Amino acid sequence: MKVKEPYDFYSVNLLGHAEQELRLAPVRKMMEAQGISSALISSNANLYYISGRVFRGYIYINVDGTVRYFVRRPSVLKGEGLHHISRPAEITSLLAAEGIGPGTLALELGLLSYSDIVRLAKVLGISSQPVDISQILRTARSRKTAREQDLLRMSGARQTLVYNRIPHLYQEGMSDIELQIEIERASRLEGCLGQFRVAGSEMELFMGNVLTGDNADVPSPYDFAMGGAGLDPSIPVGADGSFIETGKPVMVDVNGNYTGYMTDMTRCYSDGEVSAECLHAHQTSVRICDALAHMMVPGTPAAELYNKAEEMARQAGLADYFMGHRFHAPFVGHGVGIEVNELPVLAAKSRDIIQQDNVIAVEPKFVIPGIGAVGIENTYIVRSDAPAERITTVPEVIISLT
Amino acid sequence: MKVKEPYDFYSVNLLGHAEQELRLAPVRKMMEAQGISSALISSNANLYYISGRVFRGYIYINVDGTVRYFVRRPSVLKGEGLHHISRPAEITSLLAAEGIGPGTLALELGLLSYSDIVRLAKVLGISSQPVDISQILRTARSRKTAREQDLLRMSGARQTLVYNRIPHLYQEGMSDIELQIEIERASRLEGCLGQFRVAGSEMELFMGNVLTGDNADVPSPYDFAMGGAGLDPSIPVGADGSFIETGKPVMVDVNGNYTGYMTDMTRCYSDGEVSAECLHAHQTSVRICDALAHMMVPGTPAAELYNKAEEMARQAGLADYFMGHRFHAPFVGHGVGIEVNELPVLAAKSRDIIQQDNVIAVEPKFVIPGIGAVGIENTYIVRSDAPAERITTVPEVIISLT
Repeated sequence: MKVKEPYDFYSVNLLGHAEQELRLAPVRKMMEAQGISSALISSNANLYYISGRVFRGYIYINVDGTVRYFVRRPSVLKGEGLHHISRPAEITSLLAAEGIGPGTLALELGLLSYSDIVRLAKVLGISSQPVDISQILRTARSRKTAREQDLLRMSGARQTLVYNRIPHLYQEGMSDIELQIEIERASRLEGCLGQFRVAGSEMELFMGNVLTGDNADVPSPYDFAMGGAGLDPSIPVGADGSFIETGKPVMVDVNGNYTGYMTDMTRCYSDGEVSAECLHAHQTSVRICDALAHMMVPGTPAAELYNKAEEMARQAGLADYFMGHRFHAPFVGHGVGIEVNELPVLAAKSRDIIQQDNVIAVEPKFVIPGIGAVGIENTYIVRSDAPAERITTVPEVIISLT
Repeated sequence: MKVKEPYDFYSVNLLGHAEQELRLAPVRKMMEAQGISSALISSNANLYYISGRVFRGYIYINVDGTVRYFVRRPSVLKGEGLHHISRPAEITSLLAAEGIGPGTLALELGLLSYSDIVRLAKVLGISSQPVDISQILRTARSRKTAREQDLLRMSGARQTLVYNRIPHLYQEGMSDIELQIEIERASRLEGCLGQFRVAGSEMELFMGNVLTGDNADVPSPYDFAMGGAGLDPSIPVGADGSFIETGKPVMVDVNGNYTGYMTDMTRCYSDGEVSAECLHAHQTSVRICDALAHMMVPGTPAAELYNKAEEMARQAGLADYFMGHRFHAPFVGHGVGIEVNELPVLAAKSRDIIQQDNVIAVEPKFVIPGIGAVGIENTYIVRSDAPAERITTVPEVIISLT
């Protein structure tokens, strides 16, 4: 059972100055390039990125290096540059009292609702068209600091422990959802924090998905690699109560959020030997992961990685099943960190370029009618040299459940 | 183990015409009153409300009764008035081809990001200031149809089964999080769908919270009735690994999402007898629930309900502990349904008026230093007459864990 890591509950900045600077320096550089002098941040994911904690309120950053915290809750927080406020309207006068003019004050246009931005702009006296800071933060967050990488490695290690335990959780006659529930419990007992942040309002993610049989071929509305009908039309994705059959793969993609940073890993399990076709698809997935890990060096266009994966799938005679069958997901990987869908995106249309310290989940998967979902997923840290560092270290085989 | 309820996977409207009309008629009435001729809806919660399912795309509604579905994913959906699209820009020409002019096309300004609204308005040719439909839908959703009420009763019944099982899940020496994990598993095995929709970008909710001891007095950034430090600064709320002590209450508030509609229930448990002060607070909470259930009739101002609760807490000598101790939550109840924080809000400053068919969670809770969190929460359906119908039917006592 995980024990709570001690931290200073009262400090508004749990990162310390040096770590915060590592994160904010690239943000300020991009702000300057876009003519933005300051920004106000209030989304949970970005507050956590800049301060190491979630609170209710705002972080003000300025290209001159100023950082201020305007905290609504909890009222017990302390720290340099902290002001307790009850309404955002107080921010302008508090800044003015310090002689800080807001200048071009950017807001999180991609994260806050239209109504919230209009309200915020009004009380802050922003009369011109609001300017966005969310894309800059999204870009900055795609390159992880050493400390962030350590938190990701810790998540990967714990997720690995849980995945290694899955054969012990399985009992003959289980349905997909019954196995999933035991994996969820094992994850929670291992310290999984149980909140999976996703960017965008359309996506919804509970803890991940377990897919077996033809349910994997049921298309879902969500932008995941795989579908599944789910148990109810209110959340139509994932396990649908299908029983796990002998010789059929069971795909486990249950997320690893053990530190505030998530790792993404998929493995296939089976009760009994799978067919040669299934094994071929699995081995192709492993080879694609390996090839991409070797190509993932700074400067590689993300689209090239996608194209390579697709080409390898085609050469293996698996083009029809690549990233789905009735519906094909248009990507083969994605950044991961505080949120499960970060930059870069490994897609044919992606303009992202791989950079050092990207953390990328690669998930070449296949859906074969009559067999189900096959393939693996790993999370990698991009280094200066190939191959990328794999931080999800469960063996890359179809793992026997018995 | 819950078995999947069968439904027509391919139908875009799982409600049927009559039920959909029950939901849309009040929406159209409010649109007319505000001079809005049509609206485009794409948030998951509102898509589910209007069609009974979640898909990726848009529902167009017009005050003249027209309903159209513009579906991006999954491509297998069928139904009257359905168009498959790949980009929202296609909507305008598809409507024009049918002779439908968009008129004043309202969008979900309170739910979609500023960037998304600006992009959508541009491709749809909306040149004036965008108009909001989200508040109208929020208001309409606060009065549940008979079918929605049945789904809520089903959720309440299943949540009740799980809560009744909690003493069997407890083992001496457990921590709060260990007990919570067993309750989560029992909920999932009972059919809990495992996704808890919340309105607003600041709120984050996994499955709910278990609080014991002084951890209940730790203020959190989230707008919940109770706090708790949580296990990690990335998600600072709820259980923190505190051990459950003999004679101290354990407050369980784990949400019940078994049908796409959520019920909200809290009960206190204890291993051994609690103190007289604890029992007094508990009984005060029960009496407040009962008093409010009798006052919750159509026409009552929500603020009166809050004031009554606060008055009863004061008369019981518990004002300092009402809805928290170091931090006091400024409400005593809230609407619940597709999302956990719906209208009406029972707060001193609320302008909401109780209406028939509101479904309201009432949670008069206390945090007493040295004791912990005490109190109950029930979900009620407001009828034409008092008392409101209680749909969370676990006995309202401090339940023995042993």
